[in-house]
Amino acid sequence: MSQLHRKKRVEIIVEAARAPAMLDMIEAEGAKGYTVISDVSGKGNRGVRGEGRLSDVFRNVMIIVIANEAAAARIVDASQKLLEDFAGIVVISDVEIIRDEHF
Amino acid sequence: MSQLHRKKRVEIIVEAARAPAMLDMIEAEGAKGYTVISDVSGKGNRGVRGEGRLSDVFRNVMIIVIANEAAAARIVDASQKLLEDFAGIVVISDVEIIRDEHF
Amino acid sequence: MSQLHRKKRVEIIVEAARAPAMLDMIEAEGAKGYTVISDVSGKGNRGVRGEGRLSDVFRNVMIIVIANEAAAARIVDASQKLLEDFAGIVVISDVEIIRDEHF
Repeated sequence: MSQLHRKKRVEIIVEAARAPAMLDMIEAEGAKGYTVISDVSGKGNRGVRGEGRLSDVFRNVMIIVIANEAAAARIVDASQKLLEDFAGIVVISDVEIIRDEHF
Repeated sequence: MSQLHRKKRVEIIVEAARAPAMLDMIEAEGAKGYTVISDVSGKGNRGVRGEGRLSDVFRNVMIIVIANEAAAARIVDASQKLLEDFAGIVVISDVEIIRDEHF
Repeated sequence: MSQLHRKKRVEIIVEAARAPAMLDMIEAEGAKGYTVISDVSGKGNRGVRGEGRLSDVFRNVMIIVIANEAAAARIVDASQKLLEDFAGIVVISDVEIIRDEHF
């Protein structure tokens, strides 16, 4: 196989209303790019706002960022603050990519 | 980086007709939430119905669940029965999340 | 949990214009199926064409393939050539699946 480069994949699922602030943060923290899937629905706890009960199905956005470990850590930390009053999850996994220069 | 919590990510791609039963099962097995991407197409074997030939491209739904290991195992087991006569795949991976309390 | 089988998940995010060639390649390299999410936008470097600057948000397609290691390696290698003049990323991760016979 081609030479691969170890990165982090950060998958953020968040209420549509919060997506623009998330994307601004992701760019500010030094990610070279991101992918957005906007046609996403979900069901889950509504963060601190929901008092633990399940919310209705609501419109979400999925954001996927591939970043080196340092940038991923900054994005994860910053996302926590941005999610404080919103429903959302941040999921981190180990991946490998080709074409290291773009990330 | 913020403290992270190890979870399983279960990605289920299934014929749209089977998605409601899958979501009911996922809730029944104790997942705290899920994400649905409904605008998905695919090509693949149609399970036991297809006798091994490739099906035409058909409309699928992608369901993503983040769960602890025990709930993920129950969902994986139960999905197998629900997929018996349907096209679909169940993909499990290791992930980390922030905000443990919601899962 | 049911018996699981180790596979590779190859996630390709590519300009919509390049998706058909990618899908032809994926089938030619022996993948048994794939999933396509067509409603995807993104921001990122435009490969060799972009001279390093960030492109505008453009329409992308996400392709997800589950394959054994050998087929995944062939897909990764072949995708590199197909991406030469296009924006796109190829992300590989370790996953487990049920129903081995279909992959």
